[in-house]
Amino acid sequence: MTTLPALLRPASYVYGTWHTPPDGLTVLDAAYGRPLAIVSSEGVDFEQATTYARRVGGPALRRLTFHARARLLKALGLYLLERKEAYYALSLLTGATRRDSWVDIEGGVGTLLSYASMSRRELPDERFWPDGKVERLGREGTFVARHLLVPREGVAVQINAYNFPVWGMLEKLAPAFIAGMPSLVKPAPQTAYLTERVVRDIVASGLLPEGTLQLVSGEAGDLLTHLTEQDTVAFTGSAATARTLRVHPNLVARSIPFNAEADSLNASVLGRSVQPGDPEFALFVREVAREMTGKAGQKCTAIRRAMVPRERMGEVTEALRRELAKVTLGDPARDDVRMGALVSLEQRERVRDTLEQLKGETEVVIGGERELLGGDREHGAFLDPTVLYCPQPLTASGPHELEAFGPVVTLMPYDSLEEAAHLTRLGRGSLVGSVVSHDRAEIAELVYGMASSHGRLLVLNRADVAENTGHGSPLPGLNHGGPGRAGGGSELGGLSAVRHHMNRVAVQADPGTLAMLTREYLPGAEVREDTVHPFRKTFDEIKVGDSLLTHRRTVTEADIVNFAGLTGDHFYAHVDEIGAKEGVFGRRVAHGYFLISAAAGMFVSPAPGPVLANYGMENLRFVEPVGIGDTVRTRLTCKRRIRKELREGETRPTGVVEWHVEISNQHEQLVATYDILTLVERARDEHDPPPASRES
Amino acid sequence: MTTLPALLRPASYVYGTWHTPPDGLTVLDAAYGRPLAIVSSEGVDFEQATTYARRVGGPALRRLTFHARARLLKALGLYLLERKEAYYALSLLTGATRRDSWVDIEGGVGTLLSYASMSRRELPDERFWPDGKVERLGREGTFVARHLLVPREGVAVQINAYNFPVWGMLEKLAPAFIAGMPSLVKPAPQTAYLTERVVRDIVASGLLPEGTLQLVSGEAGDLLTHLTEQDTVAFTGSAATARTLRVHPNLVARSIPFNAEADSLNASVLGRSVQPGDPEFALFVREVAREMTGKAGQKCTAIRRAMVPRERMGEVTEALRRELAKVTLGDPARDDVRMGALVSLEQRERVRDTLEQLKGETEVVIGGERELLGGDREHGAFLDPTVLYCPQPLTASGPHELEAFGPVVTLMPYDSLEEAAHLTRLGRGSLVGSVVSHDRAEIAELVYGMASSHGRLLVLNRADVAENTGHGSPLPGLNHGGPGRAGGGSELGGLSAVRHHMNRVAVQADPGTLAMLTREYLPGAEVREDTVHPFRKTFDEIKVGDSLLTHRRTVTEADIVNFAGLTGDHFYAHVDEIGAKEGVFGRRVAHGYFLISAAAGMFVSPAPGPVLANYGMENLRFVEPVGIGDTVRTRLTCKRRIRKELREGETRPTGVVEWHVEISNQHEQLVATYDILTLVERARDEHDPPPASRES
Repeated sequence: MTTLPALLRPASYVYGTWHTPPDGLTVLDAAYGRPLAIVSSEGVDFEQATTYARRVGGPALRRLTFHARARLLKALGLYLLERKEAYYALSLLTGATRRDSWVDIEGGVGTLLSYASMSRRELPDERFWPDGKVERLGREGTFVARHLLVPREGVAVQINAYNFPVWGMLEKLAPAFIAGMPSLVKPAPQTAYLTERVVRDIVASGLLPEGTLQLVSGEAGDLLTHLTEQDTVAFTGSAATARTLRVHPNLVARSIPFNAEADSLNASVLGRSVQPGDPEFALFVREVAREMTGKAGQKCTAIRRAMVPRERMGEVTEALRRELAKVTLGDPARDDVRMGALVSLEQRERVRDTLEQLKGETEVVIGGERELLGGDREHGAFLDPTVLYCPQPLTASGPHELEAFGPVVTLMPYDSLEEAAHLTRLGRGSLVGSVVSHDRAEIAELVYGMASSHGRLLVLNRADVAENTGHGSPLPGLNHGGPGRAGGGSELGGLSAVRHHMNRVAVQADPGTLAMLTREYLPGAEVREDTVHPFRKTFDEIKVGDSLLTHRRTVTEADIVNFAGLTGDHFYAHVDEIGAKEGVFGRRVAHGYFLISAAAGMFVSPAPGPVLANYGMENLRFVEPVGIGDTVRTRLTCKRRIRKELREGETRPTGVVEWHVEISNQHEQLVATYDILTLVERARDEHDPPPASRES
Repeated sequence: MTTLPALLRPASYVYGTWHTPPDGLTVLDAAYGRPLAIVSSEGVDFEQATTYARRVGGPALRRLTFHARARLLKALGLYLLERKEAYYALSLLTGATRRDSWVDIEGGVGTLLSYASMSRRELPDERFWPDGKVERLGREGTFVARHLLVPREGVAVQINAYNFPVWGMLEKLAPAFIAGMPSLVKPAPQTAYLTERVVRDIVASGLLPEGTLQLVSGEAGDLLTHLTEQDTVAFTGSAATARTLRVHPNLVARSIPFNAEADSLNASVLGRSVQPGDPEFALFVREVAREMTGKAGQKCTAIRRAMVPRERMGEVTEALRRELAKVTLGDPARDDVRMGALVSLEQRERVRDTLEQLKGETEVVIGGERELLGGDREHGAFLDPTVLYCPQPLTASGPHELEAFGPVVTLMPYDSLEEAAHLTRLGRGSLVGSVVSHDRAEIAELVYGMASSHGRLLVLNRADVAENTGHGSPLPGLNHGGPGRAGGGSELGGLSAVRHHMNRVAVQADPGTLAMLTREYLPGAEVREDTVHPFRKTFDEIKVGDSLLTHRRTVTEADIVNFAGLTGDHFYAHVDEIGAKEGVFGRRVAHGYFLISAAAGMFVSPAPGPVLANYGMENLRFVEPVGIGDTVRTRLTCKRRIRKELREGETRPTGVVEWHVEISNQHEQLVATYDILTLVERARDEHDPPPASRES
């Protein structure tokens, strides 16, 4: 039996100070029912908190670039990892085993680190994010447009569920922080003590600018009435609560974006092709058992409905019975316990109520009370794994609508793939669904049939099992959310979650002005030519718009012949006078690769210098053919600069410079256009890690 | 005085039949106040209409690919253009001049055509849309994911405003149709007769599959109570109505996406740097006058607030007075009339009420009654252009909040650029703002200061005036919508509007399964090699996954020397033994362009064949350097196929085949990877236009 800490009083961290409640709701520990914490947000001034975020946190964050924000998140992630054992210890009190907590704690920190790295990889080192391509709005090219994403200038309110007190906070905080919005986090009271513990460390770290993270431990009070047009609200929890919050008059009056991620009746389908001896049969059974018992079934992504070919129902039920027999129940602190308690007795009561309501349309096929390894049957919130069978799933309504948020699953028989997909859709929108099959045609029918009503679909089979992350795991790079019952929202999904906290504005201007505003060169904008060859400048010296117009070169028959001979590319359009005449160009033309190679010959500066390597190319288009006797020249212009992080151990700081290249002929016609990527030396700056210790 | 048609009875087109109201609301013509139409949706069964869309229209649309849908939209656009004069004639009765109507009618058809062409250019010829890049979810690459967009399987309800009865319908219909969702259109009753006229033609054309377009002329009745989780609602109109609809219990209960585009207090800012003699001074005055009087000011994007440097207020007011003096008022059918009537007397009453409310904080500086050229002062809905001046805009509230939806603008003085941007933000979210200036620093300060609270920002100056489309013009490729007061929604913006009608689902699987599901090859998926070289196959014969592994080639010093000599690229990393040793690779390496050229030499099939040209390349990355003595080989695999539309006059049908290329060395290490784009012959099919008449 774990020793309890002294009665916890998780505080709120608002407007720069800690606010500890004198009295409030008593929270009990999950496995034994002993008083654990007092939770209340009484006395918190929500108007002041929102104003503080907007006046202090927002401006501080918006002064940083995406990369600077990302560096802070990375540092924070590493800092929290060092302190994880304290979180694991508290997490046991929520009823979660160490394995359950891993998802919450290390999964949460992993999400921070993931957002830190994708932001530095995919976003510019700027305060705004040019989005999509340049739109040409007139024939002459004097009027162009592009979309820009800029931070919303408000506060991101985040209302989280009790089941993931760490991950729930960090997965919402990370994209808001990267976007440039301060967060005001309100965890669920039941497990707020764990969230608070993490926030205490974050505040103590001093890593995040003041005002960018506030915490409300307890109820939300009149918080929503103080929000304004630039704020956002993200909610995770029950579909019913989502409905209530969504229609808050102030949110509606001000069109405040409200993103909901609600629990849903997620389904897993065992393919018809799967035979009892197939690996997929065992995978399905294991996945259902794992999903229903992991975190004692308190996951909004857990499998709630399992669709099984009617003829396999008996075998699946028996296999599931054997699998679930291995699930030991008890005090989550014990090593021999596989499943801990629900978070609270109220929660258990709710699950029992739901089971009661499902009685008419289902029967219990696996249940009963098992031995408890530690924990308290009477005061702890234990619930034994329960498998229901719904004989008429096409006409039943409860099993598709009522969620038992605990270790409960309903088995449903189906007779055709179409029917199986239809059954999943009766959930009226789910966060995730899975298909367990190794048959391509079957997978296609099920995936396409389920695609419109799911936020994520997992195919599980022998080919991906080794690396498969499982039905219930949201991943930072993939959409987390779903239509209808699942709340209609979208979280994570890589940078698309960052976009939720930004305003997308179309900017229309002349090319020069648009280049200045977006800090990216675009055709039509003015260029800058000086006496120094652009390849002789360091990353720090190169400016967007720096340009070189090369000497000319006449393309000869000898060039074409030699290029064909050297490369082995004897395509008829280049070397066969007869074939070329009948071909699309009507004459022999130079190899496209000769043109871009000769262009490099024109613009490269041969001696060693700051440009270290050409490592890639994008957007190459051959616009006009070049024939024998045509004379080409090249313009090279700095399009974009991206500072590259120096990694631990690397000694040479660099940046990526993207150059726009245009090759034109003697008639000033564009013959080819592309962008090349070069690695260019830069000076060491304050964001680089210090030189390796062996050097110092 | 225009002759009125017989009393119109705009009908509803629902569940495949026309439903004409026996009685209903009487609508008057705008300029004379004569009874024009009877409007009512009484008797329409909304439940049946939504069910019909889901059962008949949706499945029909989802059977078509994006390109097939786009072809229908294009045909529809051309069909409507031929009938435009009938629409212009009816449009006069709404109070709009021909110039006003151009935006509505030809702008609407232009939007259809624009969506048709961008869809064929940017979307695959499939029923689903693979979105973003492939995510690798494990180290070994056996578990990968990608997002797919699939049509929502419901009905897209579109509730439109009275001011653009044609454009308003078509700009919402086009993206929904492309996405694969049937539309149920409800125009505003006042101008429903014009929408109905267009829908009559659309239905008569037989171009759109039955059930994909339904029309409700009149009130929406209990429509919203019949919507389900897969449906969507898009609304254009007042912010107040948006608020009411958004909280409809059924929409909330089912998380039905609700997109609102509401009128807002859009601002235009005259830069401080602009002198009265500058082109920008005249441009500003002309733009304000045009925006306030175009469509008699009944545009949700019109300039409502004009920010002027305090010291220029007098000059601007006088110039605006002169500009507005040219605006003739009267019967919109007359050639000498620049501004027609408001849509109705009720609408005029509302504008007058608002003017009354603004009296405390503003004064009228330009107003008065002008001569009427036709039309009826008493029974027509005429309102003279009115310019207000707000002396204390920083503290005033009315002019930032109350919208006079007519020919009214408020001038506001400002003292600094920061203040000007702040004033625009007092509108609490706008569809569009503009900056009139030729000073880059000034433009930057204003644009960045306005970016978070606007959906679109226009820079107007001498550099873009020739092609500038103006403050109030939404464009198909650019976002239309805005935060806060503007409704928080987003329309148009190219394909992003199509996404609103689709569900985005993350699909996780092994690479082979994912390639099958997305119909795009990805590394790790199995390839298919046969005896026929892939370049000898036509577009129709090539399958995704068709692959060629070439012979090998040893890269020699002679290759490098010859390539340097031929191309003129003597970069030290290739030709300078001393420099190369000190460089990043530590030795002389082959030119990257030599590698891709030699790769072409390995995979090209020289004789004339179905592959006509290599016209581009994407995603080139040089992964490992190749030195003297290294031996490389190439794998070429069909990644994606895109049928290309044969344009009128073209005789050779083609498709684009994208090939994924991987060059590896003797250690099986990847040295370079890229995708090449080839144009490949295909057989003529039923979607190609018939051969040119001179051939027949």
